[in-house]
Amino acid sequence: MASSHVSSTVVPVLDPDLGRSVFDRLHEIGFDGRGMTRPSYSEGENLAHGVFETVAREHGLEVRRDWAANLFVTLPGRNRDLPVVMTGSHADTVPCGGNFDGAAGAVAGLLVLCAWVRAGYQPERDATLIVTRAEESVWFPLSYLGSRTAFGLLDATALATPRSDDGISLRDHMLACGAQPDLCDRATVLQPARIDCFVELHIEQGPVLIEADVPVGIVTGICGSTRYRSVVIHGQYAHSGATPRRFRSDTVMAGASMMMALEAAWKQVEAEGEEMTLTFGVCQTDPAQANFAAVPGRLELVIDIRSRDEGLLERMNALVIEQARRAEAEYNVTVDLGPRTRSTPAVMDAGLQAEAKKIASTLDIPAILMPSGAGHDAATFAGQGIPTEMLFVRNANGSHNPDESMEFPDFLCGVQVLEHLLRHRASQD
Amino acid sequence: MASSHVSSTVVPVLDPDLGRSVFDRLHEIGFDGRGMTRPSYSEGENLAHGVFETVAREHGLEVRRDWAANLFVTLPGRNRDLPVVMTGSHADTVPCGGNFDGAAGAVAGLLVLCAWVRAGYQPERDATLIVTRAEESVWFPLSYLGSRTAFGLLDATALATPRSDDGISLRDHMLACGAQPDLCDRATVLQPARIDCFVELHIEQGPVLIEADVPVGIVTGICGSTRYRSVVIHGQYAHSGATPRRFRSDTVMAGASMMMALEAAWKQVEAEGEEMTLTFGVCQTDPAQANFAAVPGRLELVIDIRSRDEGLLERMNALVIEQARRAEAEYNVTVDLGPRTRSTPAVMDAGLQAEAKKIASTLDIPAILMPSGAGHDAATFAGQGIPTEMLFVRNANGSHNPDESMEFPDFLCGVQVLEHLLRHRASQD
Repeated sequence: MASSHVSSTVVPVLDPDLGRSVFDRLHEIGFDGRGMTRPSYSEGENLAHGVFETVAREHGLEVRRDWAANLFVTLPGRNRDLPVVMTGSHADTVPCGGNFDGAAGAVAGLLVLCAWVRAGYQPERDATLIVTRAEESVWFPLSYLGSRTAFGLLDATALATPRSDDGISLRDHMLACGAQPDLCDRATVLQPARIDCFVELHIEQGPVLIEADVPVGIVTGICGSTRYRSVVIHGQYAHSGATPRRFRSDTVMAGASMMMALEAAWKQVEAEGEEMTLTFGVCQTDPAQANFAAVPGRLELVIDIRSRDEGLLERMNALVIEQARRAEAEYNVTVDLGPRTRSTPAVMDAGLQAEAKKIASTLDIPAILMPSGAGHDAATFAGQGIPTEMLFVRNANGSHNPDESMEFPDFLCGVQVLEHLLRHRASQD
Repeated sequence: MASSHVSSTVVPVLDPDLGRSVFDRLHEIGFDGRGMTRPSYSEGENLAHGVFETVAREHGLEVRRDWAANLFVTLPGRNRDLPVVMTGSHADTVPCGGNFDGAAGAVAGLLVLCAWVRAGYQPERDATLIVTRAEESVWFPLSYLGSRTAFGLLDATALATPRSDDGISLRDHMLACGAQPDLCDRATVLQPARIDCFVELHIEQGPVLIEADVPVGIVTGICGSTRYRSVVIHGQYAHSGATPRRFRSDTVMAGASMMMALEAAWKQVEAEGEEMTLTFGVCQTDPAQANFAAVPGRLELVIDIRSRDEGLLERMNALVIEQARRAEAEYNVTVDLGPRTRSTPAVMDAGLQAEAKKIASTLDIPAILMPSGAGHDAATFAGQGIPTEMLFVRNANGSHNPDESMEFPDFLCGVQVLEHLLRHRASQD
């Protein structure tokens, strides 16, 4: 249990061995032979949460779960009535992902609280690590699922959503993970007014810090997104040699023409100095029917567009629809875009950014300001009006792949900034 | 056994019930729940050959197999030293194909020989139906596999080729089907000089006869092809939101750009009055790694280009290579085109064409001259300098799909022309 008898002037020291050990244990849980696979609301995610809980209990920290089975680890402050300082991230991964996306932020928060316990530092206000559920919306087409449920933002009808790999509903997955989905309407656990701030550490998922040769990024904002996760182009299988072009309903050509038209628009947006990304991450003909000797009669696509500019997202969305209609006419196919999902861009807190910058400078840790192209649980907190900040840690090879490569010393740089920033807020009465 | 005592002036009559019955039996063998799947050198193909053998034996026809397990059904002529009149087609299908592609030609030949037996018609020269093996080169990347082996055109090294679905070698598949692949070098069974002509009936695999409202097509030539069956574009998986465009190695965009560039060239070729087809029948990201939140790091493609103009095929091939290099530079990917496979265009025999046209006119069966965009075993015979002709039967919905739809009366029109054409040649001494 955290002691309140020791002077708060003792400087907490992070335990690198504990950090390495937790990463190793997470790796054992999730390794699929090539990368990490810990699906949202799966046994693997459960086991990962268990690792955090075990370490927390060993350090005498308070542990509880909400109805959605998000994990909360708290070091009580002197005045438990004050709004709480929060940090955290998620423990699920994409299929065949890496060991740091999500986990780094959860491990960072754990190291901070454990360091505070060991140093006998008791904050003025509660400091809470949240290890969220189901952030990787690969599995459920719902952004920031765990953190949004924690704020009561999940529509009850969403409980029927099937997980993409096994088709089992969110509700049943929650039940299997010890959650209580039937409490969703009345068991909101987080009140924005009761939260002083939220700071999430995360690996950078692009190459910006690598290119800039800097270990830490201080995030200025989080992109929103517009997505079509289940586009199906329906055409007509036909003999590849015997079907003249005018008789074809070629889904692959139709899809390629949409891609090139949208890519041209992206280049135009960039030429005008605006930022966005456009990705067709999945593109596949039907393995059961497609072959080299047939015009492909079916193509599945996903479309992912991200930007910090909500107006730009809407303009691109209109263009997606326009291009789908154009491709239908040009290639005699039907483009079923399927449901659109989206997330709203989020702004980070200027005060926290300035403080983080000052801390990095004091600690002599190189850091730059940068946007987050990826979405994060932090966007949920920011969306609730809570002062929110993110810290990125340099990471080679991007994320959402088995080759994520965060150097441990870089991680410790990020956690140091996090520790000072959280302590700065938690010490205030 | 065919009788030589009956007058040859008896007019042979086709047996529609026998035709329907054989198609029904083939359907039972190949039905996969949605379409026909009788892979090359599979048990399904074996069973199909067995159907033809059974009917042939019931009618007293000679039956034999060559070392590659092609089936030969012969009605002996009066003078067995004369070059033989041949007809036939294949009994394998593409995955989830229809019941008429290939089978129609084999059933047609069987109906002709059985009608001759029943009518007591004995030709001057042998008349032989060949039911070939492994024409659908979906399964083995070797065009006209069965008919080419029959002429000793198969390179012995090709025996090691794995079948695309199960990876088992051609040699082992042949052995399992009762063939003797080790005889391949010395057991050539067909000598071009011993063959008077070859006429193959086949469903049309495009919509030309449907559009022209004509039941029979008389083929003027068969397209050759240039194919890349295993193109792999290698790039880099990266977070879709966090990876700016300049850092990407996006395989789907690279593939789409190749498709659009080649399609533009195709349109130009057509604008100049030349004929070709261009098809990307398979286009797929890796199901194990691709997801909506990652730039796709791998894309598999197949490219199929067909034309009756060999020079055009070579020009298009050069453009494929040029576009692969352009895409590599533009998208920072590697385009591995893999091996190129090809088949040579084939010209049909002018005399047989004229005779077929005359027969159709006499029988009051509407028929038009047309090219074959698809390749066929007939191309092997034509390539050996044997007078060769093809007859197409009107067929809705194309081929290589479960919806092939040849009307039985149209089939009988085609078989009537075939019967008269074969009898015309077989009666000559």
